[in-house]
Amino acid sequence: MAEFDLVIRRARCATAADVFEADIGIRDGVITALGSGLAEGLEEIDAAGRWVLPGGIDGHCHLDQPTSDGSKMADDFLSGTRSAACGGTTTVFPFACQMKGQSLRAAVDDYHQRAEGKACIDYAFHLIVTDATPEVLANELPALIREGYTSFKIYMTYDDLKLSDREIIDVLAVAREHGAMVMVHAENADCIAWLTERLLAHGHTAPRYHAEARPMLVEREATHRAIAYAELVDVPILIVHVSGREAIEQLRWAHSHGLRIYAETCPQYLFLTADDLGIDDDDPHGAKCICSPPPRDKANQQVVWDGLESGAFQIFSSDHAPFTFAGPQGKFAAGSDASFERIPNGIPGLETRLALLFSHGVETGRLTMQQFVALTATNVARMYGLYPRKGSIAVGADADLVIWETGLDRRIRNSDLHHGVDYTPYEGIPVSAWPALTLSRGEVVWRDGEYLGVAGRGQFLPCALPAPARPKPRPPGGAAW
Amino acid sequence: MAEFDLVIRRARCATAADVFEADIGIRDGVITALGSGLAEGLEEIDAAGRWVLPGGIDGHCHLDQPTSDGSKMADDFLSGTRSAACGGTTTVFPFACQMKGQSLRAAVDDYHQRAEGKACIDYAFHLIVTDATPEVLANELPALIREGYTSFKIYMTYDDLKLSDREIIDVLAVAREHGAMVMVHAENADCIAWLTERLLAHGHTAPRYHAEARPMLVEREATHRAIAYAELVDVPILIVHVSGREAIEQLRWAHSHGLRIYAETCPQYLFLTADDLGIDDDDPHGAKCICSPPPRDKANQQVVWDGLESGAFQIFSSDHAPFTFAGPQGKFAAGSDASFERIPNGIPGLETRLALLFSHGVETGRLTMQQFVALTATNVARMYGLYPRKGSIAVGADADLVIWETGLDRRIRNSDLHHGVDYTPYEGIPVSAWPALTLSRGEVVWRDGEYLGVAGRGQFLPCALPAPARPKPRPPGGAAW
Amino acid sequence: MAEFDLVIRRARCATAADVFEADIGIRDGVITALGSGLAEGLEEIDAAGRWVLPGGIDGHCHLDQPTSDGSKMADDFLSGTRSAACGGTTTVFPFACQMKGQSLRAAVDDYHQRAEGKACIDYAFHLIVTDATPEVLANELPALIREGYTSFKIYMTYDDLKLSDREIIDVLAVAREHGAMVMVHAENADCIAWLTERLLAHGHTAPRYHAEARPMLVEREATHRAIAYAELVDVPILIVHVSGREAIEQLRWAHSHGLRIYAETCPQYLFLTADDLGIDDDDPHGAKCICSPPPRDKANQQVVWDGLESGAFQIFSSDHAPFTFAGPQGKFAAGSDASFERIPNGIPGLETRLALLFSHGVETGRLTMQQFVALTATNVARMYGLYPRKGSIAVGADADLVIWETGLDRRIRNSDLHHGVDYTPYEGIPVSAWPALTLSRGEVVWRDGEYLGVAGRGQFLPCALPAPARPKPRPPGGAAW
Amino acid sequence: MAEFDLVIRRARCATAADVFEADIGIRDGVITALGSGLAEGLEEIDAAGRWVLPGGIDGHCHLDQPTSDGSKMADDFLSGTRSAACGGTTTVFPFACQMKGQSLRAAVDDYHQRAEGKACIDYAFHLIVTDATPEVLANELPALIREGYTSFKIYMTYDDLKLSDREIIDVLAVAREHGAMVMVHAENADCIAWLTERLLAHGHTAPRYHAEARPMLVEREATHRAIAYAELVDVPILIVHVSGREAIEQLRWAHSHGLRIYAETCPQYLFLTADDLGIDDDDPHGAKCICSPPPRDKANQQVVWDGLESGAFQIFSSDHAPFTFAGPQGKFAAGSDASFERIPNGIPGLETRLALLFSHGVETGRLTMQQFVALTATNVARMYGLYPRKGSIAVGADADLVIWETGLDRRIRNSDLHHGVDYTPYEGIPVSAWPALTLSRGEVVWRDGEYLGVAGRGQFLPCALPAPARPKPRPPGGAAW
Repeated sequence: MAEFDLVIRRARCATAADVFEADIGIRDGVITALGSGLAEGLEEIDAAGRWVLPGGIDGHCHLDQPTSDGSKMADDFLSGTRSAACGGTTTVFPFACQMKGQSLRAAVDDYHQRAEGKACIDYAFHLIVTDATPEVLANELPALIREGYTSFKIYMTYDDLKLSDREIIDVLAVAREHGAMVMVHAENADCIAWLTERLLAHGHTAPRYHAEARPMLVEREATHRAIAYAELVDVPILIVHVSGREAIEQLRWAHSHGLRIYAETCPQYLFLTADDLGIDDDDPHGAKCICSPPPRDKANQQVVWDGLESGAFQIFSSDHAPFTFAGPQGKFAAGSDASFERIPNGIPGLETRLALLFSHGVETGRLTMQQFVALTATNVARMYGLYPRKGSIAVGADADLVIWETGLDRRIRNSDLHHGVDYTPYEGIPVSAWPALTLSRGEVVWRDGEYLGVAGRGQFLPCALPAPARPKPRPPGGAAW
Repeated sequence: MAEFDLVIRRARCATAADVFEADIGIRDGVITALGSGLAEGLEEIDAAGRWVLPGGIDGHCHLDQPTSDGSKMADDFLSGTRSAACGGTTTVFPFACQMKGQSLRAAVDDYHQRAEGKACIDYAFHLIVTDATPEVLANELPALIREGYTSFKIYMTYDDLKLSDREIIDVLAVAREHGAMVMVHAENADCIAWLTERLLAHGHTAPRYHAEARPMLVEREATHRAIAYAELVDVPILIVHVSGREAIEQLRWAHSHGLRIYAETCPQYLFLTADDLGIDDDDPHGAKCICSPPPRDKANQQVVWDGLESGAFQIFSSDHAPFTFAGPQGKFAAGSDASFERIPNGIPGLETRLALLFSHGVETGRLTMQQFVALTATNVARMYGLYPRKGSIAVGADADLVIWETGLDRRIRNSDLHHGVDYTPYEGIPVSAWPALTLSRGEVVWRDGEYLGVAGRGQFLPCALPAPARPKPRPPGGAAW
Repeated sequence: MAEFDLVIRRARCATAADVFEADIGIRDGVITALGSGLAEGLEEIDAAGRWVLPGGIDGHCHLDQPTSDGSKMADDFLSGTRSAACGGTTTVFPFACQMKGQSLRAAVDDYHQRAEGKACIDYAFHLIVTDATPEVLANELPALIREGYTSFKIYMTYDDLKLSDREIIDVLAVAREHGAMVMVHAENADCIAWLTERLLAHGHTAPRYHAEARPMLVEREATHRAIAYAELVDVPILIVHVSGREAIEQLRWAHSHGLRIYAETCPQYLFLTADDLGIDDDDPHGAKCICSPPPRDKANQQVVWDGLESGAFQIFSSDHAPFTFAGPQGKFAAGSDASFERIPNGIPGLETRLALLFSHGVETGRLTMQQFVALTATNVARMYGLYPRKGSIAVGADADLVIWETGLDRRIRNSDLHHGVDYTPYEGIPVSAWPALTLSRGEVVWRDGEYLGVAGRGQFLPCALPAPARPKPRPPGGAAW
Repeated sequence: MAEFDLVIRRARCATAADVFEADIGIRDGVITALGSGLAEGLEEIDAAGRWVLPGGIDGHCHLDQPTSDGSKMADDFLSGTRSAACGGTTTVFPFACQMKGQSLRAAVDDYHQRAEGKACIDYAFHLIVTDATPEVLANELPALIREGYTSFKIYMTYDDLKLSDREIIDVLAVAREHGAMVMVHAENADCIAWLTERLLAHGHTAPRYHAEARPMLVEREATHRAIAYAELVDVPILIVHVSGREAIEQLRWAHSHGLRIYAETCPQYLFLTADDLGIDDDDPHGAKCICSPPPRDKANQQVVWDGLESGAFQIFSSDHAPFTFAGPQGKFAAGSDASFERIPNGIPGLETRLALLFSHGVETGRLTMQQFVALTATNVARMYGLYPRKGSIAVGADADLVIWETGLDRRIRNSDLHHGVDYTPYEGIPVSAWPALTLSRGEVVWRDGEYLGVAGRGQFLPCALPAPARPKPRPPGGAAW
């Protein structure tokens, strides 16, 4: 019997720390050896001269998530994970979202049903806590953490999602006690509401006013506040989808004061600007780029790039939130007869995330290959408790691997993508690299432009407690217990 | 008929900008001439060699203010203004405080009745807005602003006083529209509540835990948030009783971004530390120094001094909030049988404010005499709409003047003070200067250690719109109207 | 005999702190009374409804200063002070500049001869120390300080002017010991030299490369270094002609650390940008705006305005350095056949300084009238030891006064100016205010568009020790003596 | 023939990114396989349950370096590398130091002779450039870079070492052109000289005044200046031995402005304070801790720890500079009859570096194991051009490995160390971990407390160009070529 089910030969491997050339030996879906001249496998792939990287982990995406406004997500676990696999992502973290009044457990159960039989790659759940009742805080959350739901997102804005400040603090305290990771959507709800009312009162309803209703101060203030609450409770948090300078300055302030504040950014803050929401009021297509926080300007893009380079960010996610432009539940439906604040927030990005960063980050020299791996896979696994099973090329890790083709001269076209959305906000942006082959636990799910996955083969992954870079609790801020 | 009712000869005058020697000619309570060798007055005072400064304006004090917790203020308009006059203050700004559910108008009417016939020096009212109903925002506030109540304080903490964030924004918008000045008590209510619960749960009830329940981050966060809301609405605000480094850093950040954020500090942040709330749990006397924000440490005192020197602060007030230590409505009453969170917040300071800053600020060389005048009188008048009638030594201004005695070797003793409180938190602190004579509109109210005021002679002063240093509105932050 | 030689009636006066309406009584060139209804003077001026402000003090201008490169200044003490008077300035501070190898005393003696019989308004001298020999440090400087030369400028760039870092520290130590004020030209000489060599090597010789040879980092670095040396020696310093954000951030850092760092800015940083040095290489007129540091961009202009508003700057000067554009010793002479680094640095501005700031600062609401007076007169007098004789409207002060005409609709035209330069960099900029009348010690030197001064009537003013806002020495930084 | 010379079984491996359990197969001194159940090797080591980490790379140490003051280093390549090996370090970077007037080539040749036949582990050379002549800049440096001397250190202080500012810029320009890495010793020479003169003039000669002569501002200023020059030239630099808050703030400022500024810190800034230089003047033992920059205080130690945790630092080195305390060429010789400024600067630390950081960083939870590996090995290799041959556990890398023993209860004792110095500044500090076995290219050089190395077996390593995290050149700062 062969030692390996599969051997990838002469792979130019990169981890979050290293680059090396090796044969990769895989058995039972797991990497069991790295070496030069490994014994023959049942199957062999020659990767000579090609980068072989850990499969991407998308730490922030929304699939088949129930909404409360009549909109409907255009990707379920099938189309969503298919799209991910075709873009080189082998694990996704969608959100089991509690509805106000609902138990968290119910949300989790419902979400498992939605995933059942559909996912073609592995997946874990973040929770979204929208109703921090005593029962949720005292019982449900601790129980779910123990069961492997170790990260949860909270919102500082959106009426149907946001927690009060006291609830935020209470949730952070639960996270501290049980070792979970809290992800924070940091925008100030009251500022947005006040600006929105003013804009609407002046008849400013076009998509581009979405950006005016959420200026940088809205994000800066909420970021500062979230950091203060993390300092109060003495717990690490992770600020998701950071969009520009003023929020990044808050992160750096926290770091310089010894606080464990982690952060994520997304492709929209590197590749889009507020202008993509429309230059004039007549342009409905701006709705395609409505997401929150909104894209900023070119100067802020540079600051986000600088933050990726210098370690301000740990994670690069898509924040894939798929709504069609056309159709009765699409963005345009709302946009055509209503105003910006009624257009569903979110843009697709699962499939394009890796190629965009590889092409414009690594191949331009802004990021090292190791940084790319860290931002798109390893750190995600570590922050959310999937490490070391996922996120690296190492003995004992799942054989979730991507062989990259580079030197391409192509542009992103929605017609090439595999999600359920009728557009991509990145249409026409050139990419010089794209996955040639995606392996999920040693099985080929994407090869040479062909999707080869099987619905339902993806496994649910219970998560361990996160292992962020700085795990040690400090003495509680200012208090005597 | 003589040209002057009173001439002060050879006065060593200081304004917020200038020092000069002159005779000061006064007629009908107003300064009508400054010159060398003025004609003889009906009365004459020789001030040769002595500093003659504008009478102090205390921009932040509480007198006979109704409370909701059963405590009672120990100073009414009589004892309060008497105490002020004896310490060189000639105008006070107490607060007409709306009770939740009450109209602002009712609060103002009630407060006029409390002042009626009692004040021995002039006074104006700040409002406290605790219930920002549509009626208050649309009608009452604008009407009261027109009538001369042009500054109002809002609270971000205290259950019976605090506004919601949306209410804060709405009040700021009213201030912007009508040109009023909003004073902000910046502490995060939820952090305080959470810490207080934890402390009490651990049995930490002594006065000193008051400081632990309100660490610096509580103030920093609220200061950042208040600044963000002022930026949103594009309106100047004034942060009251700033206590230390982290809040001052927020002020400087605002200044460096072109925002018109003004600030006040108080004697307690220069002369007290958290240790004054008690070193151990058995010390009830710590209750005497309970105020909010609490005093910090020596390093923060230095930063506050630096802020006074370098222009971070515009105003130096007492935040006089008089509660006796003993007695059934005193601090000890609460403290003896209850915990820190039930002790009335506030300390007396009306009478000692000027002498403390003169002695430890001016005579040590930290502040120029002009800075002293600006911080204690001129800026207060300008920020709150009493300028140019009050706050300076200038032709046309009220003859509110103080002749200072310097070179003293004395210490602050409560037995020397004239307020209604049975202690002073500054007991024993040396002062080298004290008012020898206080003139209110040309009339002597304090001379050589003797109070000469008459209850009821003080006048209510309707205020003009504030004239802060940077009055020009900027375009609204981020929005398109 | 009349009490007053001159009475200005119903003047709308402003000082650095106050605005008030008063009659101003003047006798023997000094303000002897301010009052309502003063007795009649020998002469009377009705100023009803007009602003009457302290005459401007230009704390930074170059007149008839010897140069070492063959260029020649276009203004001597006659044309220079004439121009100043016509623009509302009543005191100037030009520089007695030591040549390397020369004694400071010789420079002072020479400079007195140049001024002799020419100045029509009063003047004092700053020294420029370029050769900090032991004799200069130990004897000449202390003696000159005692004689009334209490401020000196040092350069961190220009080969013929700059001190070594050790010399800078030594000069600061002398200033600390004797109480003098050191003004610092903060640009890094080595960076400029290196960039200049590179630019020339690439054939980039046009005027506009002057700005590229002196980017913001050149100024930021030198500003940081100067502040560090002031911190080391524990002495206040004043950074002259600060041009933009990165340098201002250094000032704010210093303030937040309790350091007494003062600063000046100039009209060129509010009204010009680097584009004024030429958009393309063929434009010789860019030479007209060559000064150092160079003007920056619009964003930096805003930051300088914000700095003026928020107290980052104490002084607003012209840095008048007059070179003609045409003529054998003019800028174009050099510019036509040579490269940017050989064009004399400096632009004229004595006459336009006040009207520009009044029109664009005060009348737009950016600055209060008091800030205008402080920045252009009072603070200058205080920083450089002429206070209280100069810089305010106060009993005992010289009657250096300007009556302003406002509501004008005119533009700056060089043909209207009185300096010896054949251009103004501010040509065409609108101004809404201009001095209607300038009084120097009670004598009219400019009235209704007519120059009425007399050469030689200006007096030399020995200076007292400066009285900056924070005079108290701190313990020496880090050392044990 | 066996596939492996040596297999380490069940190693708990850590790289800068990953932790995994694997067998490590080694052949010809190189790691040729990582896997579970590798084939048998000629030799076998069971590491079950033990951490196996990449051998340490000390990126900053001084061995047998000629001095100009009569002192002599106590470690040559034999004792130095022996000490390193016993402490788990498998590669050292000492300095080939140019003497002023000497060619760089001569320094390199001399240094090779000193190393010849002595080193028991591998080594590479940094250069020290002290005389940046045109020949050095144009020819010697480029040639040496091509030959594998790709990093060089420059000094901003020490009379016999320091470059002028222009020389610094010129050296940076060479580094930019050829891709080399410049390490900067950032202290301001003039400040130190001025303070030293003052201290000596006051008779302050004891060792502890060394710290007073080099306060934080001395380092902050030079750090800011070095960063400005790197920004000017647009080249990455690495600031060595950063000691505390104010310098770290400069690093963070640079990062927030997109500059590629790297930094190193050392054990002395985590474990020593200025008090270790002596509390009183009579204590000669303070000489043992004299190094530059000097250790600061406890608060700065915390800030350095925070910097290690949050990514402000890339490298953790010893800055081993070995001088005996006793003896004619020791620190005490100078210290006993002379003053602090004549005591040789530097402390030993090669052998204790790793155990100190492992014990107090990793085992306390401050740092992850991956961060430990990055700081002590991987980043060093990458910054200085030895990667991927050195610095990781990866297929193809040299088998430089350390098996750690943990859970120890011991203290550092100089009697246990193997260097040539008669003291350690870390005497008595507890460590809970120490290398049980050190492998250099597959050969055991330290095992169970016994040194097993062979003089001369260490190889000289020519370095490739550094591969820092952000290799892409930006457009030159502010200039047009």
